[in-house]
Amino acid sequence: MTYCVGLRLDAGLVLLADTRTNAGLDNISRFRKLFTWEVPGERVVALMTAGNLSVTQGILTRIEAALARAAAGEEIETILNAESTFRVAEIIGELMREQQQGHREPLMAQGVSADASIIVAGQRRGGQHRLFLVYAAGNFIEATEDTPFLQIGEHKYGKPILDRIVTRHTTLAEALKVVCVSMDSTLRSNLSVGMPLDLAVIRAGECRLHINRRIEADDPDYLQISQGWSEALRGAFDTLPPMWGET
Amino acid sequence: MTYCVGLRLDAGLVLLADTRTNAGLDNISRFRKLFTWEVPGERVVALMTAGNLSVTQGILTRIEAALARAAAGEEIETILNAESTFRVAEIIGELMREQQQGHREPLMAQGVSADASIIVAGQRRGGQHRLFLVYAAGNFIEATEDTPFLQIGEHKYGKPILDRIVTRHTTLAEALKVVCVSMDSTLRSNLSVGMPLDLAVIRAGECRLHINRRIEADDPDYLQISQGWSEALRGAFDTLPPMWGET
Repeated sequence: MTYCVGLRLDAGLVLLADTRTNAGLDNISRFRKLFTWEVPGERVVALMTAGNLSVTQGILTRIEAALARAAAGEEIETILNAESTFRVAEIIGELMREQQQGHREPLMAQGVSADASIIVAGQRRGGQHRLFLVYAAGNFIEATEDTPFLQIGEHKYGKPILDRIVTRHTTLAEALKVVCVSMDSTLRSNLSVGMPLDLAVIRAGECRLHINRRIEADDPDYLQISQGWSEALRGAFDTLPPMWGET
Repeated sequence: MTYCVGLRLDAGLVLLADTRTNAGLDNISRFRKLFTWEVPGERVVALMTAGNLSVTQGILTRIEAALARAAAGEEIETILNAESTFRVAEIIGELMREQQQGHREPLMAQGVSADASIIVAGQRRGGQHRLFLVYAAGNFIEATEDTPFLQIGEHKYGKPILDRIVTRHTTLAEALKVVCVSMDSTLRSNLSVGMPLDLAVIRAGECRLHINRRIEADDPDYLQISQGWSEALRGAFDTLPPMWGET
């Protein structure tokens, strides 16, 4: 399983992903699910992946292969020279379709799901910062003012806190806290989501990675949030009035 | 869909269920999912149901039919004269198996799930107050000191708050608040769970219903918790320290 959450705020983009992958309950591995590219000041792209690992790795390999060919002088379209962030999402959707066409039937014959989904975030100079969710069929949706966050993988445990806190006006400092609380709720409730985490923050208009870090299980800031939240929640809870006179 | 949550605390049993049933997204109805019986001071039994409505209604009809026959003087086993609350769970499990045997294959042939699950709570005089979860196969588990709550239906959105707050030592007053917050998180995130709610509280040792009420959408105590929690959560959130220096 996986949990990845992305916020599209007026202030910028915040992405947080876990690193646990499992084939059944007894085969657990660690794989990065957050990937970033930048030409600072010009363009930044970040992806988060969920679902069948061979499918998402296949997509990443093709992205990197195209970037390598472009770097070697070939004139081909890549996620770093595409005309817009919308076009980057289209490219990811096309790569998704390619992978699904190649692998879906043989996987299904083995009773294995080929499902995968990818969150695409980024900004190019002169464009807006945008956040997309690409489905297994290659189609995609975009985060909007009404729903400024997108989730993939095990999304339910971490959704209530997002529903209550996140608006387009949420600051980046608040956003860091809220994605960590959302992740922490998921980690506590689903063993197939696990530390360490990967975090990326892109400030609106900067077209570069403002934060791009791994968060290990002993990270003091993360621990402070994780423990602090349980205490804060307990405190909040104690302020609620008694119900139906029961004290 | 459905959300039902039951707590088994040292102080007693707390049960909360929604009332929304849907066959697809466009066919939504209201059906009670919490059912109670009591011989005050002698025995109390409460059930909460999730899953295929024809299956759970079939079980309830058989429970009521047995109670009616016993009331008419027939010497048969019912949930109100069974030797223990454990035996009550066994009876529900047997009725579940009967229903599954009768309906499972024809339902599956129609592509409809026959899955169902039932939370059984109760106490008889001289026994412990107990909380069970009966699965579609008729087998069941019991809430313990380590995991003092059980959920059926759409359980994920409402689980993080239970994980963080509920222990066997939680008071009944706190328990009322926590199940309402858990339900409120679920209502906000899943449209197929809906008001009104049904609440039952059984104090340990009393063998009677201490609270047994319907909570309508305009219930002032419920609204106070629902709105109060969003504000309390926001306050708790603001007490968290900034992460990685981002302010």
